[in-house]
Amino acid sequence: MKGLTLTILGCHSASPRADARPTAQLLDLSGHLFLIDCGEGTQVALRQKKIKFARIKHIFISHLHGDHYFGLIGLVSTMRLLGREEPLHIYGPKGIKEIITLQLKLGKSWTNFPLFFHELDQDVSVLIFEDDLVMVETLPLDHRIYTNGFLFKAKRGDRLLDRAAAEMAGISPAYFKKLKQGHNVPNANGDLVDHQSVTEPAKTPLSYAYCSDTAYLSSLPELISGISVLYHESTFLTAQQGLCERTKHSTAQQAALIAEASGVRFLILGHYSGRYVHLEEFREEALRYFDQVFLAEDGRCFRLLEGDGQQMVQI
Amino acid sequence: MKGLTLTILGCHSASPRADARPTAQLLDLSGHLFLIDCGEGTQVALRQKKIKFARIKHIFISHLHGDHYFGLIGLVSTMRLLGREEPLHIYGPKGIKEIITLQLKLGKSWTNFPLFFHELDQDVSVLIFEDDLVMVETLPLDHRIYTNGFLFKAKRGDRLLDRAAAEMAGISPAYFKKLKQGHNVPNANGDLVDHQSVTEPAKTPLSYAYCSDTAYLSSLPELISGISVLYHESTFLTAQQGLCERTKHSTAQQAALIAEASGVRFLILGHYSGRYVHLEEFREEALRYFDQVFLAEDGRCFRLLEGDGQQMVQI
Repeated sequence: MKGLTLTILGCHSASPRADARPTAQLLDLSGHLFLIDCGEGTQVALRQKKIKFARIKHIFISHLHGDHYFGLIGLVSTMRLLGREEPLHIYGPKGIKEIITLQLKLGKSWTNFPLFFHELDQDVSVLIFEDDLVMVETLPLDHRIYTNGFLFKAKRGDRLLDRAAAEMAGISPAYFKKLKQGHNVPNANGDLVDHQSVTEPAKTPLSYAYCSDTAYLSSLPELISGISVLYHESTFLTAQQGLCERTKHSTAQQAALIAEASGVRFLILGHYSGRYVHLEEFREEALRYFDQVFLAEDGRCFRLLEGDGQQMVQI
Repeated sequence: MKGLTLTILGCHSASPRADARPTAQLLDLSGHLFLIDCGEGTQVALRQKKIKFARIKHIFISHLHGDHYFGLIGLVSTMRLLGREEPLHIYGPKGIKEIITLQLKLGKSWTNFPLFFHELDQDVSVLIFEDDLVMVETLPLDHRIYTNGFLFKAKRGDRLLDRAAAEMAGISPAYFKKLKQGHNVPNANGDLVDHQSVTEPAKTPLSYAYCSDTAYLSSLPELISGISVLYHESTFLTAQQGLCERTKHSTAQQAALIAEASGVRFLILGHYSGRYVHLEEFREEALRYFDQVFLAEDGRCFRLLEGDGQQMVQI
């Protein structure tokens, strides 16, 4: 799948209910399938979406409140039962390794696949994963316990080749890769051809920031400036501002102000408190401060196509 | 609720699926609501059955395989969020305390209510709970890791008073309680009346044995002789006998042979492997060796009324 697809497996705060799953998301970006948080019941939500567990190689846990990770040990155990052999990488706060390994040990259920823990304890943004196509950085957040958001950035790809123009210019196909990489190359006559004359700039790389759970954090926009999609928690509406501050969460208004200050293209709200019945109220509150607001709902998908950049499709 | 009611919250082995919950049961006996095992998703199953979490004061965990306890930390956390103040008692293998407290500690989520752990490590049956109405004993089982079943026994109640006969015999109501307790008492003339002449024996106390997970265990019938209801795992059918032995589980045939040897009244089968589609096959296999066989299914209730003893109602 080209572009960026975000599947909301669960987007509610606190305890799971029959019609409200705790937090878990699946991000499909640059060929990777990243699992972000893993509340109780995530493995069932993955099955309902017909996601092959083997495709998930990296799991990111924001913090050690149960609604963000109580489903992790079950998912890891099921991967073992399914005969997984591929390595699995888990990124999360210091302590996550002890929690998972203690349970595997007491159940005499060691995984047959390599399980790597990348424990986080820094209070500044750090690079935690990188390959040729994508990089992932932490976004230190402000919550009751140590918490990170995560910033996923696709890397800029090759320039786009105008194949007909390159052939007209007498350039051998053997040079096409170099052209796309931005090099000037010789044509059949031995003349050097400017790569810009037969290629166009690469598409703008897509990016996604996950920020949950957090109080309003004025330092956040600097870290996520100009990204494509921001998921920002909005546990409360402004009417519950006092409760929001005490519990170190955000209102829909605050999420929208962060989106506005960051210059992101699209904002997705989620992590709603169970006290609210009409989620549309969150969108209405946020729309007063930012104009591209979407609502997470359990099972909903958001898709942003590379290059068009102007529209996010909600499925 | 008088009598015995067993609610199957989940009865499948291994990983939770959309239509198959891992093990958890709720036993309503002598005014207690006992939770037995607590696989992932149990708290949602309890909500769907509209069970008030505050009514559960004792939780029994058979062993530390995930399909029997991964839902426990979520349930405990939710009890905290709901503002519980009543104590909670958890009975389970050594290690359960460390698993739960580690997660509460790392989430800075200590419970506001007293949480008592009763860790088990003995290989013989021991009494683990008793009050005026009921007693609970362990049933050491034979599985890949340390595992206990649990035997719940209502205590024998008072004798049943024939009030009219007692009045005819000239006995003052002040003596009725003593009569029901089996004492001979004087009538209005000062003559001693035999309690047996105006009372009937107490009803047979109801009892329930939970046995999962276990290989066929020939020493089990001695411990559960003559009980009312036996839940015995039947992960496999006899056709998969080899797999059954390797994984230390039981077949439906073996469960039935245990029921027959124990002289129990009713057998409930459960903990089915995900490989089977038609659960009725389990009942058919067991019926060849024992004639009162019921099938556990997620959400199903079984009710045995005190005194009648001859019929179990399936709801």
